[in-house]
Amino acid sequence: MSFLDDVPWNGDGLIAAFAQDAKSGRVLTVAWMNREALKETSERGEAVYWSRSRRKLWRKGEESGHVQKVREVGIDCDADAILLKVEQVGGIACHTGRESCFFRKLENGRWVTIDPVLKDPSVIYKK
Amino acid sequence: MSFLDDVPWNGDGLIAAFAQDAKSGRVLTVAWMNREALKETSERGEAVYWSRSRRKLWRKGEESGHVQKVREVGIDCDADAILLKVEQVGGIACHTGRESCFFRKLENGRWVTIDPVLKDPSVIYKK
Repeated sequence: MSFLDDVPWNGDGLIAAFAQDAKSGRVLTVAWMNREALKETSERGEAVYWSRSRRKLWRKGEESGHVQKVREVGIDCDADAILLKVEQVGGIACHTGRESCFFRKLENGRWVTIDPVLKDPSVIYKK
Repeated sequence: MSFLDDVPWNGDGLIAAFAQDAKSGRVLTVAWMNREALKETSERGEAVYWSRSRRKLWRKGEESGHVQKVREVGIDCDADAILLKVEQVGGIACHTGRESCFFRKLENGRWVTIDPVLKDPSVIYKK
C-alpha cells in the first residue's frame, strides 16, 4: 500500500511511533512500528507496535487490556515518526501502572517522578 | 551530571526528542539530542538538538528565529525519548513554514496534508 511505501523505514525496518491522548493531548507512550505493525494499526484501528526486545508484533493491551483505540494516524515532514491520537482504554498506558510513560520531569538536574501509580502492575499483568 | 548519565544513549549517542506546545498540547517537532544537546537545552532553556545530517549541534531557531522556549523536560519510563513542553516562538515549528511538522494524516490509505503553510520557507530562511 502506498502509505507504507512512503515511510523511509530505518536500517532495522522501523519507525518511532508515539501516542497522544486524543482528548487531553497528553503524550502517553513511545514505541516502534515496522511495516506490518503500521499496516495492522491502520486496519484494526488499534495500536500495534513492534517489540524490539521480544522481536514480534505487540498488540498494545493484549495482556493488560489497555488497548489504544486509534482516532488519527499522523506523520511528520521527513517521516521520522508516527503520531497516533488515541483513546487509551483503562486510562493507563504505562507498564508501571501510570497514565503515561512520561511520568518523570527534570527538576534541578534530576529526573523526578510526577505521576502516581494508578494500578499495581502485578494486578495488571496476571500471567 | 546525573540526569545525563541516566539516559541510555543509543549506539549513535542519541535519544529521540520531541516537542509539544505547552499550551495547546499539539506535537510540533521530532528530532534527536546527544548528551551535549540535552545539557545545553537544560542550561539555556531553549531547545538544542543534534543534526544528524549536518553532524553538529542545532540550536532550533538559529536561522529562522523560531526558537522553542522550554517549559518542561520529560523522559519516558525506559528513557527512549525526551519530551519537551515548549513555547514555540513565531508559531511555526516546521521548516516547511507550518505550525507543526505533523501536518499529514492518514486518510483512506494516503497521507493527506491538513495544515496550511503560514510563511513561505524562502522568507524564513534568507541565507
